[in-house]
Amino acid sequence: MQSYTARINVRYAETDKMGVAHHASYLLWFELARTGLLRECGHSYRDMESSGTLLPVIEYNCRLVRGAEYDDPVDIETTVSELRSRAVTFAYRVTRNDTLLAAGWTRHVCVDADNRPRRLPAEVVTALAPYVNT
Amino acid sequence: MQSYTARINVRYAETDKMGVAHHASYLLWFELARTGLLRECGHSYRDMESSGTLLPVIEYNCRLVRGAEYDDPVDIETTVSELRSRAVTFAYRVTRNDTLLAAGWTRHVCVDADNRPRRLPAEVVTALAPYVNT
Amino acid sequence: MQSYTARINVRYAETDKMGVAHHASYLLWFELARTGLLRECGHSYRDMESSGTLLPVIEYNCRLVRGAEYDDPVDIETTVSELRSRAVTFAYRVTRNDTLLAAGWTRHVCVDADNRPRRLPAEVVTALAPYVNT
Amino acid sequence: MQSYTARINVRYAETDKMGVAHHASYLLWFELARTGLLRECGHSYRDMESSGTLLPVIEYNCRLVRGAEYDDPVDIETTVSELRSRAVTFAYRVTRNDTLLAAGWTRHVCVDADNRPRRLPAEVVTALAPYVNT
Repeated sequence: MQSYTARINVRYAETDKMGVAHHASYLLWFELARTGLLRECGHSYRDMESSGTLLPVIEYNCRLVRGAEYDDPVDIETTVSELRSRAVTFAYRVTRNDTLLAAGWTRHVCVDADNRPRRLPAEVVTALAPYVNT
Repeated sequence: MQSYTARINVRYAETDKMGVAHHASYLLWFELARTGLLRECGHSYRDMESSGTLLPVIEYNCRLVRGAEYDDPVDIETTVSELRSRAVTFAYRVTRNDTLLAAGWTRHVCVDADNRPRRLPAEVVTALAPYVNT
Repeated sequence: MQSYTARINVRYAETDKMGVAHHASYLLWFELARTGLLRECGHSYRDMESSGTLLPVIEYNCRLVRGAEYDDPVDIETTVSELRSRAVTFAYRVTRNDTLLAAGWTRHVCVDADNRPRRLPAEVVTALAPYVNT
Repeated sequence: MQSYTARINVRYAETDKMGVAHHASYLLWFELARTGLLRECGHSYRDMESSGTLLPVIEYNCRLVRGAEYDDPVDIETTVSELRSRAVTFAYRVTRNDTLLAAGWTRHVCVDADNRPRRLPAEVVTALAPYVNT
């Protein structure tokens, strides 16, 4: 199984008055990591979107274990936890020096530019297959 | 059962290039609604925090049904879906003119200013009790 | 001279680890206040945009005087500081109980849906005229 | 004169319904770039803050020339445009493949942990000196 790992440093604006990254920031990091995985497997989301294949989020979940502080280097390891003909779920593990900070997932359906359900293109399914964690 | 409903208008900055509110915006609306519920029941979170009772988010979930457009008036109805001695879960229903846009929940533990687990103050439990949905 | 005042409460997510609203939050409040002024004067930005009149920001400025804390009720008083045939500048004063927190402005050009410069519609100029501070 | 250049890719969440990065995103990129410059010159802002030297923003300005699209690689070149005993101004040029997208600056005062004005530490002044653009 392959995975894609994005690395970010926590932005000052992402912290809140508790002194750690606000819980919504994780969703933005998930998105960044997902974008990276798709680019790595040869299907940049930008190009997919231009050609009428959109993957809007229909559900998300995140469990927070430890806080991430300003400027902390944070890794977001991303895999595919479910791959269907019309939907895909990405799973994320957020760590700092191998310490787990958070884990979550985002579920996406495939739609066209008019927001009508469609099948994931076969070549995208093929490209995502190695990232499926089983 | 009581509930608290916050009303917002979707901010331009909250939209993304799909033309609707970004999925992370819902978490900010949940937070706003939760803040309102706590204020309404006599325990403003700001005061709770000042007096050493914090409720950090430890898990969240959101299911997205329909998009919310710029400037849409959106209601976030909030209840308590679980109330324990050391944890509380808030549930949210996001609607526009009674049409469901999204539903979600946030789970919180109670900690003190040094991030040590503590019991929810008895008066907070009492104040939240009417909002428990069963 | 007329003005429009929007009222917000500082969101938790808008604070940063300094304990006050992050400086970028003011831009989002400016936008909210500008949206409110346009709606009040009969030209909701949403409708303007749908009909091909866009007002993208081409420059902004903000001077920060005092911090805004979580849940603080904050007023954003908005006027028009310059009104030209193809551009408009909005000015903002951000206060908490009449104490100045920040002041700023945003400059906008008028473009059509294809991003080509165009004149502000005559009826918009007329509607904005009472808000011009001189 | 030295400069520091940060590279980011525009996040999906940073775009708005106009299809380009929201104008407030530039402030977050400025912050990221400033953080990088300080780290490069040996005074990570995180450490400065821990040791009681804070640099809150007191004014900012940004002029937008061209839009930045989702996933665009964007460079933020940062220099120091003014260096005083108690204040510092950073200047930023945002480009995509050498095309100017935006330019701006942020002005900061130096304060201690209790928000009282203080002098910039001599070693910080020395470290920033090479980045002063004249």
